[in-house]
Amino acid sequence: MAPSPIRYVTKVDLNKPGDAQPQVHNRWHPDVPFTEAIKPGETVKIECLDWTGNQICNSDTSDDLKNVDLSRIHYLSGPFNIETAEPGDVLMVEIKDVQPLERQPWGYCGIFHKSNGGIHATSRHIPHVKFSGLIHPGIMGTAPSEKVLTEWNKREKSIKEEIQHLHDTSVANLPEVVNAHGGSAEGSLKEKIAKEGSRTIPGRPENGGNCDIKNLSRGSKCYFPVYVKGAKFSIGDLHFSQGDGEISFCGAIEMAGVITIQAKVIKDGMKLLNLKSPIFLPGDVQNHYSPSRYLTFEGFSVDETGEQKFLDATVAYRQACIRAIEYLRRFGYNDYQIYLLLSSAPIEGHIAGVVDVPNACTTLGLPMDIFDFDISPEKKDLKKDMGNCAFVSNYDHPVCYEFNEGLLNSFNINS
Amino acid sequence: MAPSPIRYVTKVDLNKPGDAQPQVHNRWHPDVPFTEAIKPGETVKIECLDWTGNQICNSDTSDDLKNVDLSRIHYLSGPFNIETAEPGDVLMVEIKDVQPLERQPWGYCGIFHKSNGGIHATSRHIPHVKFSGLIHPGIMGTAPSEKVLTEWNKREKSIKEEIQHLHDTSVANLPEVVNAHGGSAEGSLKEKIAKEGSRTIPGRPENGGNCDIKNLSRGSKCYFPVYVKGAKFSIGDLHFSQGDGEISFCGAIEMAGVITIQAKVIKDGMKLLNLKSPIFLPGDVQNHYSPSRYLTFEGFSVDETGEQKFLDATVAYRQACIRAIEYLRRFGYNDYQIYLLLSSAPIEGHIAGVVDVPNACTTLGLPMDIFDFDISPEKKDLKKDMGNCAFVSNYDHPVCYEFNEGLLNSFNINS
Amino acid sequence: MAPSPIRYVTKVDLNKPGDAQPQVHNRWHPDVPFTEAIKPGETVKIECLDWTGNQICNSDTSDDLKNVDLSRIHYLSGPFNIETAEPGDVLMVEIKDVQPLERQPWGYCGIFHKSNGGIHATSRHIPHVKFSGLIHPGIMGTAPSEKVLTEWNKREKSIKEEIQHLHDTSVANLPEVVNAHGGSAEGSLKEKIAKEGSRTIPGRPENGGNCDIKNLSRGSKCYFPVYVKGAKFSIGDLHFSQGDGEISFCGAIEMAGVITIQAKVIKDGMKLLNLKSPIFLPGDVQNHYSPSRYLTFEGFSVDETGEQKFLDATVAYRQACIRAIEYLRRFGYNDYQIYLLLSSAPIEGHIAGVVDVPNACTTLGLPMDIFDFDISPEKKDLKKDMGNCAFVSNYDHPVCYEFNEGLLNSFNINS
Amino acid sequence: MAPSPIRYVTKVDLNKPGDAQPQVHNRWHPDVPFTEAIKPGETVKIECLDWTGNQICNSDTSDDLKNVDLSRIHYLSGPFNIETAEPGDVLMVEIKDVQPLERQPWGYCGIFHKSNGGIHATSRHIPHVKFSGLIHPGIMGTAPSEKVLTEWNKREKSIKEEIQHLHDTSVANLPEVVNAHGGSAEGSLKEKIAKEGSRTIPGRPENGGNCDIKNLSRGSKCYFPVYVKGAKFSIGDLHFSQGDGEISFCGAIEMAGVITIQAKVIKDGMKLLNLKSPIFLPGDVQNHYSPSRYLTFEGFSVDETGEQKFLDATVAYRQACIRAIEYLRRFGYNDYQIYLLLSSAPIEGHIAGVVDVPNACTTLGLPMDIFDFDISPEKKDLKKDMGNCAFVSNYDHPVCYEFNEGLLNSFNINS
Repeated sequence: MAPSPIRYVTKVDLNKPGDAQPQVHNRWHPDVPFTEAIKPGETVKIECLDWTGNQICNSDTSDDLKNVDLSRIHYLSGPFNIETAEPGDVLMVEIKDVQPLERQPWGYCGIFHKSNGGIHATSRHIPHVKFSGLIHPGIMGTAPSEKVLTEWNKREKSIKEEIQHLHDTSVANLPEVVNAHGGSAEGSLKEKIAKEGSRTIPGRPENGGNCDIKNLSRGSKCYFPVYVKGAKFSIGDLHFSQGDGEISFCGAIEMAGVITIQAKVIKDGMKLLNLKSPIFLPGDVQNHYSPSRYLTFEGFSVDETGEQKFLDATVAYRQACIRAIEYLRRFGYNDYQIYLLLSSAPIEGHIAGVVDVPNACTTLGLPMDIFDFDISPEKKDLKKDMGNCAFVSNYDHPVCYEFNEGLLNSFNINS
Repeated sequence: MAPSPIRYVTKVDLNKPGDAQPQVHNRWHPDVPFTEAIKPGETVKIECLDWTGNQICNSDTSDDLKNVDLSRIHYLSGPFNIETAEPGDVLMVEIKDVQPLERQPWGYCGIFHKSNGGIHATSRHIPHVKFSGLIHPGIMGTAPSEKVLTEWNKREKSIKEEIQHLHDTSVANLPEVVNAHGGSAEGSLKEKIAKEGSRTIPGRPENGGNCDIKNLSRGSKCYFPVYVKGAKFSIGDLHFSQGDGEISFCGAIEMAGVITIQAKVIKDGMKLLNLKSPIFLPGDVQNHYSPSRYLTFEGFSVDETGEQKFLDATVAYRQACIRAIEYLRRFGYNDYQIYLLLSSAPIEGHIAGVVDVPNACTTLGLPMDIFDFDISPEKKDLKKDMGNCAFVSNYDHPVCYEFNEGLLNSFNINS
Repeated sequence: MAPSPIRYVTKVDLNKPGDAQPQVHNRWHPDVPFTEAIKPGETVKIECLDWTGNQICNSDTSDDLKNVDLSRIHYLSGPFNIETAEPGDVLMVEIKDVQPLERQPWGYCGIFHKSNGGIHATSRHIPHVKFSGLIHPGIMGTAPSEKVLTEWNKREKSIKEEIQHLHDTSVANLPEVVNAHGGSAEGSLKEKIAKEGSRTIPGRPENGGNCDIKNLSRGSKCYFPVYVKGAKFSIGDLHFSQGDGEISFCGAIEMAGVITIQAKVIKDGMKLLNLKSPIFLPGDVQNHYSPSRYLTFEGFSVDETGEQKFLDATVAYRQACIRAIEYLRRFGYNDYQIYLLLSSAPIEGHIAGVVDVPNACTTLGLPMDIFDFDISPEKKDLKKDMGNCAFVSNYDHPVCYEFNEGLLNSFNINS
Repeated sequence: MAPSPIRYVTKVDLNKPGDAQPQVHNRWHPDVPFTEAIKPGETVKIECLDWTGNQICNSDTSDDLKNVDLSRIHYLSGPFNIETAEPGDVLMVEIKDVQPLERQPWGYCGIFHKSNGGIHATSRHIPHVKFSGLIHPGIMGTAPSEKVLTEWNKREKSIKEEIQHLHDTSVANLPEVVNAHGGSAEGSLKEKIAKEGSRTIPGRPENGGNCDIKNLSRGSKCYFPVYVKGAKFSIGDLHFSQGDGEISFCGAIEMAGVITIQAKVIKDGMKLLNLKSPIFLPGDVQNHYSPSRYLTFEGFSVDETGEQKFLDATVAYRQACIRAIEYLRRFGYNDYQIYLLLSSAPIEGHIAGVVDVPNACTTLGLPMDIFDFDISPEKKDLKKDMGNCAFVSNYDHPVCYEFNEGLLNSFNINS
């Protein structure tokens, strides 16, 4: 009596927009209706849309990117009813496998313009680079309780009020009725979710969410606090590969795909483990480079204008990225190519020291083994023809340090 | 004709204060006199004081810690004249070996009080933990040119003026005549160095300095910009082991020791490599744990009072540290023990995502293999008697989240 | 213009015997007709049968195993015409991916009886063990030229004549007309292949073949000598996982599956690389355990009767296996369970020393992280109920050291 | 009250022959007198001679090698009285550190002539290769009981009688009075040890001994059966580095040095652990290369004359070595240089498959990262001037496949 093939609890349609598919949703809210139930111990497969819900296609025009509607993103499969889970429990999700969809064997990575417009670039290649993708979901999480949801909306509103006037781009995305997708909810429930539901854009300490942790691949075990009956676990935003920091915003090789998981409930686990935020154990199958093969760039909290910042690890990491960009220019790559490379390759971003005032020190480790030529510092300058990312006419980027300028690059998976 | 034993270019005296030893210094300044010359290609040994210049002893009283004079720290061996090095070159330093001193086989780790006083604690152990130290220097760097020095002092003064009033502790340490140690400089030169010399406390983008990068151990190759003739390379502040972030300020197992290096000069290297900050290749011999054995804590930029911060990786990493502290309490460790453990064990601090507003997400990976019992989440609570760090009477720490409260813990090396 | 899904160059039928499928074959011979052509640089998918050509099913009876016909095994997909490949070239095959078939998500491992009969055992589990499979093909190779084929048959005949009388089981399998499968060959060509074709059972230095190298997974690049026009590359015998040595004969988790490859031709490569046997570079995504987590057993060339053998690494490795079996009994596993475990888990078999007469020394490293309890030597004996492999009535195994007694164990993939 | 420096329990004299030093010995015998006692839990340092007992010096003549007296080798420090250890216990020895002696910072590697004479070669370099040594003891073990000793001598005598006539070189070295060194034993005890004591040349299953396991470095824990009161633990034959197989006989970078250990006794451990041969856990600090950076050679049990051997892993591993030698010739290395390189660098020798009759398959993995140029197969032939190992006049080696021809190569440690 052979086992049946593994049960699919979600299938997605690659030809319809995300918000036309009731088995996905794009808001965190305790009332998003369950899609399927999953028994503890059962192994299931879940298909996921790419983060834009089919808005990007693998093409040589860039209208898709130019026209991406950023209010219609991060569609998650679920929420699933994990049987027996109660508030206060811990939900353990083991990732058995993550794969691209055979019917869509490609992904993409892009650099987005601040204002999300006017950009028309596309490129096929970053030449001379190859690595195995460590496929992982960018977003996983349990649903918030009403209390947690209220707290989220309050604190994000508060930072918006305090500092939005100092920034050009949005510092936080508050609940928004337009293009809210509450899964299969209808009528007044749909309206309530749209009005109150927290956005799926940021990760949050209480449930994880959009953490973009590149190591959560095959074999990983993740432990989530449970706030509502059945846990209401959701998952999506698959990445074929990503570097630490997801630095180009759309900072990974994004794709649709299928993930195989098994769930388990630890009763009263939040108290037992003293758990306030998700924790995890990565899998034992990972990209595996020697420490001696990471060319490592130091970055300090003195920003690109020379201004001293105070123990700011975010600024310091940006500096490490810029140092890497400057270094790789030696070989003929342009800044866009490098930026995409750092976003999507398995680079390691470490916090080195955050105590010696006023400088935080971080490091960016670039695995030299992903290049098919020797990039180590002792090699003489070997400038190559690296092609280019095609730019639209009349578009001029002197140096792309802002980390959210836009262009699109396509990666083919398995080729 | 056997090779002679490797030449020592610096020996230190463990019974005299650092400022009584002319072969070390504690200011960055282009005019600190050379100690010894080193030929490119030559392998040499350099003894280094611990970071306090012999102020801490391995004792059961804590007067040494209570009385540490923080104006007399970070004594560096050198500066060395690397023959042939000229401004614009790159100095490559390969670390052949780092060892404790046979005549002083111990190190220490402490948590310092903000005001550096009133603390009398000491402890021998964090029980049930063992790991191999990855010995490395906390500080390495080339001397600044006058121009670089001026820039440092200006920008650190500027942040001091801007934000010091918002902080209880010093946000930057400006040049200070008291206890300045200019090596063998005398008279007016000594005074000039004391008046102008930048402090050795922070790392800086131009020359590295106090980077506290835990991976710079045996086999590492580091590339430094050269700003003055002879490079004036200095080194010190050896650590037996450290976790990413050096989170407890004195956040490593500090020790005196001896480092074996070989230097090489890449002519015109700053331009060739487009090098503005040090870069390095770690060695190939390192602590080596499976990715699946890192229990990993997620930290987000919502601070411990619940306040939302904007993409702040420093706050996020502090939250990951706090999550780890909360978790490890299950086993009977107190917060001080855990804090010291995270500072000195080979923990991995990663930047996961810094683009999804408003939350930065970081991770702290704790290698489970350093414990002699199973700390994984699926094990039932096994509270053990973990002893304690001895506190002085009348000293009460409810919860130690500030990350700069003080107590002292001694580690014996090799035992 | 999106890329099409990757082209399948072979599909297999899971409901028909291997020899009824002309796109596979089970003899090495220069004249087996090509199935499909593959262009250098093209990425293709190849489905493969399990090694028995659908003889084993995932059942609770063991008639399938009892009745396995060992003359009908090792069906290989191909041979493929790699365009432009000529004798003297080197064929590089890069493995892009290896997966189980979604329509058959299970594999199996067995211990075979010497005489391949009388055994009726089956088991579902080796409890408390879990690991990620490193999926790989057991067999890959290029076709022999007539000259190479003649050499193979001659030298294997010669050892058969010399030493067969000293052994109970076959020491070499010579060409055999019965159940020879020459792919799509018909008539006299089919007869010629059946008569002359070398068996697919052993690996051979000239073309690799059945090497059972557990590391040839995703990302591996393999370099094969080319002996005939078009290379006639064949592949099959997929394993979900295997330990070094494939020690139980059917010593892996065997399965049907699909492999994605890309081929490349290095003109005149045999001379350029001085290549007589295949070489390879493994992929960078692998099971990754700390060296400190391998419990390692030493084995010497003194056999289980106490007889001294001379620098015999095969005997020494068998002793290391027996030491591991004896050790693991502490926990309640029986010898069959352990034997299957060692065959299918990612154990490391090393040659330590083969020069200090008269003993060869080998080691077997067992990754402790695959167990969900602590098997290290310092833990007290924790005997558990480990269930059993079901034996048929009247079957009695005192101790199973022969390494080719038979029973069957099923593993479910992804569960 | 600082800890004293760690206690030395053995110091050695580098200017006297081994047999003039009573704190070392070169026979396994239960009656070799104890040197020092070590308490369980105590950390101690032990100096060790190189394996020849100071016969080799780092020179440009090769008279030392030519004249090496192979009856005066493998001097071990000890035996040590591990307090509380009784027969039936298990002795756990944890290696805290292994270092070269500061007063002798060099090692050597050689290829020995079968007849140990007539060879006068020496060389300083294998150019373009550098790696970090994983320093380890080649020999560790507990003393045999009288019963075990008798068994050893009997079984080695038996193989000598059976097969010595088929070999040119000795197949086993039996007890030998000449140059036996029983440590501090005097008079009739000295004679008894000389007459009965087993040689220290081979490893043996009962106590380990000369296992030459390259991974037993810092942090390793080794578990030995105890056969006599006090365990009589001995240690020596330090290697700066070695490849799997120790293939050139003197197949490592040999050196004198100092090892720091801690011992522990597991009462009744042989029964508890079912322990018949030593087992170990390696340390967590090791050379660390990506799996994808091992260029891997396949070797099968068809010997260099084309003769088919039956599942012979020793022959198969030799073939893998020969394939590596043939490959590396592309770059200008001569066979001697390669042979020494394979002996001393951290190469990995694996048993791939030993079940598919008649061929055993083994692999030899060569870490490409130890070369300062790219040796991967896709690089064009880059012949370099690799210098040479100086040969004596009139000495002609066509191809050195015998694996015990002789020449000497010196390695400087830390340079």
